[in-house]
Amino acid sequence: MPYFDAASSAPLHPVARQALTAALDEGWADPARLYREGRRARLLLDAARETAAEAVGCRPDELVFTGSGTRAVHTAVAGALAGRRRTGSHLIVSAVEHSSVLHSAEAHAGAGGSVTEVPVERTGAVLPRSFAEVLRPDTALACLQSANHEVGTVQPVAEVARLCREAGVPLLVDAAQSLPWGPVDADWSLLTASSHKWGGPAGVGLLAVRKGTRFAPRGPADERESGRAAGFENIPAIVAAAASLRAVRAEAAEEAARLRVLTGLIRARVPELVPDVEVAGDARERLPHLVTFSCLYVDGETLLHELDRAGFSVSSGSSCTSSTLTPSHVLRAMGVLSEGNIRLSLPRGTSREEVEEFLRVLPGAVAGVREKLGAPVAAAPAGAAAELVVDALGKRCPIPVIELAKVIGEVPVGGTVTVLSDDAAARLDIPAWCEMRGQEYVGEEPAERGSAYVVRRVD
Amino acid sequence: MPYFDAASSAPLHPVARQALTAALDEGWADPARLYREGRRARLLLDAARETAAEAVGCRPDELVFTGSGTRAVHTAVAGALAGRRRTGSHLIVSAVEHSSVLHSAEAHAGAGGSVTEVPVERTGAVLPRSFAEVLRPDTALACLQSANHEVGTVQPVAEVARLCREAGVPLLVDAAQSLPWGPVDADWSLLTASSHKWGGPAGVGLLAVRKGTRFAPRGPADERESGRAAGFENIPAIVAAAASLRAVRAEAAEEAARLRVLTGLIRARVPELVPDVEVAGDARERLPHLVTFSCLYVDGETLLHELDRAGFSVSSGSSCTSSTLTPSHVLRAMGVLSEGNIRLSLPRGTSREEVEEFLRVLPGAVAGVREKLGAPVAAAPAGAAAELVVDALGKRCPIPVIELAKVIGEVPVGGTVTVLSDDAAARLDIPAWCEMRGQEYVGEEPAERGSAYVVRRVD
Repeated sequence: MPYFDAASSAPLHPVARQALTAALDEGWADPARLYREGRRARLLLDAARETAAEAVGCRPDELVFTGSGTRAVHTAVAGALAGRRRTGSHLIVSAVEHSSVLHSAEAHAGAGGSVTEVPVERTGAVLPRSFAEVLRPDTALACLQSANHEVGTVQPVAEVARLCREAGVPLLVDAAQSLPWGPVDADWSLLTASSHKWGGPAGVGLLAVRKGTRFAPRGPADERESGRAAGFENIPAIVAAAASLRAVRAEAAEEAARLRVLTGLIRARVPELVPDVEVAGDARERLPHLVTFSCLYVDGETLLHELDRAGFSVSSGSSCTSSTLTPSHVLRAMGVLSEGNIRLSLPRGTSREEVEEFLRVLPGAVAGVREKLGAPVAAAPAGAAAELVVDALGKRCPIPVIELAKVIGEVPVGGTVTVLSDDAAARLDIPAWCEMRGQEYVGEEPAERGSAYVVRRVD
Repeated sequence: MPYFDAASSAPLHPVARQALTAALDEGWADPARLYREGRRARLLLDAARETAAEAVGCRPDELVFTGSGTRAVHTAVAGALAGRRRTGSHLIVSAVEHSSVLHSAEAHAGAGGSVTEVPVERTGAVLPRSFAEVLRPDTALACLQSANHEVGTVQPVAEVARLCREAGVPLLVDAAQSLPWGPVDADWSLLTASSHKWGGPAGVGLLAVRKGTRFAPRGPADERESGRAAGFENIPAIVAAAASLRAVRAEAAEEAARLRVLTGLIRARVPELVPDVEVAGDARERLPHLVTFSCLYVDGETLLHELDRAGFSVSSGSSCTSSTLTPSHVLRAMGVLSEGNIRLSLPRGTSREEVEEFLRVLPGAVAGVREKLGAPVAAAPAGAAAELVVDALGKRCPIPVIELAKVIGEVPVGGTVTVLSDDAAARLDIPAWCEMRGQEYVGEEPAERGSAYVVRRVD
């Protein structure tokens, strides 16, 4: 039963399990105490910090353990902004950061700070010059992920870090997705990561703050973890996190090469096997284990359900999954199709057979969903009306696009179809459909309810 | 090798270990996902919430899991204050709360809020009327622990909760020390606790917020745990925390009765075995497993070290331990002796033999420390000078008190000894010594360096 959602949470690595179990006996006492149980706990904690710091590429005294990757990000953003408040309150984030970064930015804006979102290319990558353009004298902090969690695109962190350093602005790198594959080779000031993303246990985040970076922890004082992570240290989990990070690193080069072939296979084969598919992300500068594509005329939730029934656990950035009502902010920022979106992130040890089985199952699953939704299978014969209006009000993704596709053949080349829709996903998916289909997206106009999306038939 | 510091962190309960190991296989996936691994994780999380809620005495939807007890307290105080900010910004805490509560109060005061500390009796208990007196129309929140973590005194929570309810003020009960022994039988509005205090794993705190309590989570938004505890849920640890809480509750009545006999034995025997000892806390309204006493003319760190060498792991609220330079705020608020302070908190399963071995070892350990420090063993013969000044500047606890004790016999009854000291502990320990010795504490006067503490010989 293949699990292809390692980017959400990786199955526990055997080394993590072993280290966790072993540390339960010695790691439960308070490491701040001087008696033998406390000293033993302290030794475990110190050793884990050294191991993790080596993997991160920082000094042990620059690294603290938090209760989660999200907590590491919240603490990093708040602490760095507070440490630089005399310089200003301007925060820069890329538009495709993890929600923990964007929510931190929202909180900062809510408290009166200013935030600039750096746009990305259609590949999901920021342009370093886009970062450079928004650096200001009052910029307190800039944030850029090492690689994107939804499409796998690797960001130009080294160059952005250099630009930030020249401007005297600290750069926070969220390395949650890339750290298992290697250290972040850039002159960052702060770095965060999350243990359960590399097969360590949940409950452990990493927060590294380079010496010389101004940092003022927020919230009530607490003496643990250099005052940067309040609460009793979860030492068995920390030990397991560090040990498993070292273990995955030892296998990283070989496993990356192996998985890159498999994700490459998916990237190549899916568009051949399934009509009307868009593969997202950069084809070369990408994480080895992650691939994302979107299927026209498909709703993500039904497709997830079909794949789950067939034994495949995957995730989706579509708006039509139950956990969210808006399409993934990442796909939106990239301007790519979000409907019928599927993200595969292969855990270590994924076999070629599992991937091939997925490729066997996928076309039927997509076709089944499309059939249920009455999606067009071929272009309809040309009609006479030069302008058509499709009322898709009250209908959710992917119905508006399906309705559009059904009638586009009914207008002559040069004619237009106007889709009335109040579904947020349409704003992204109608232009994306036009791009895929070679039709012209004329634009969006306000309507009595929702918006009117105008498309001109070109092809 | 007896470990007598369960109040800091309890050894892992066998049920916790078993549940944690079992849940590692099923609890690593994201419970927000719809595929089978996610559904399994969600089932585990839901079941753990029901178990823990039953033990707390609340509804499952009133309870969230945080990354630690400290985090639960920080979140509870900040969220309750924010939820009631239209009412006012007055916060009430008892003077003997856990540092996580007092640090939250400091952060609130630092942000412009007002804080009232309710004093305690010499037993460590607050008087309900002291709470009632400080409730104001602008009081947003009141905090009272269920039982004190350093001296074991049980607080009159039910009565304080009733007074708060009448005043329309929510009461937050920090139940970290008492929850293993039973639910908090009071009409509280918010409650916090910590898994590793009852033998569950570290990394899990409980935060219960009763329906109808105004609560506005602070910090960046996060959809997990009802928006009250950001970050990926640590499900294996949560499962283990809930299972072990149920297990310790099943044994609680019997174990409490057994340990109460042992702590009663310590309370009775220590003052018989060791001269110049003060046992702290309420003799009846107390936790079953915890006992605290202070030894005159002894420094806590040396005594901890001697006991550790003899195989006993205990903690100390003295100023002379390496983790802190000021005496315990609890002992200070109670006005009892802090020097040579020892807290014993017996974990489940502690045997009578272990306690008796401790009682055999203690007198020699205390005598050895006193001898090294040159502490007085008997009153010196009466001298002639009516006023003596002892210069103890630059000397740390317990030296100032030892110097005082050495010379008090050299002044006639009615004469005074003035101790010059710049050690913060002297402010607490010199009056406490006077109380124990039946001498009159005249008062403290400012001096060129530190303070001058004046004592009149009465006895």
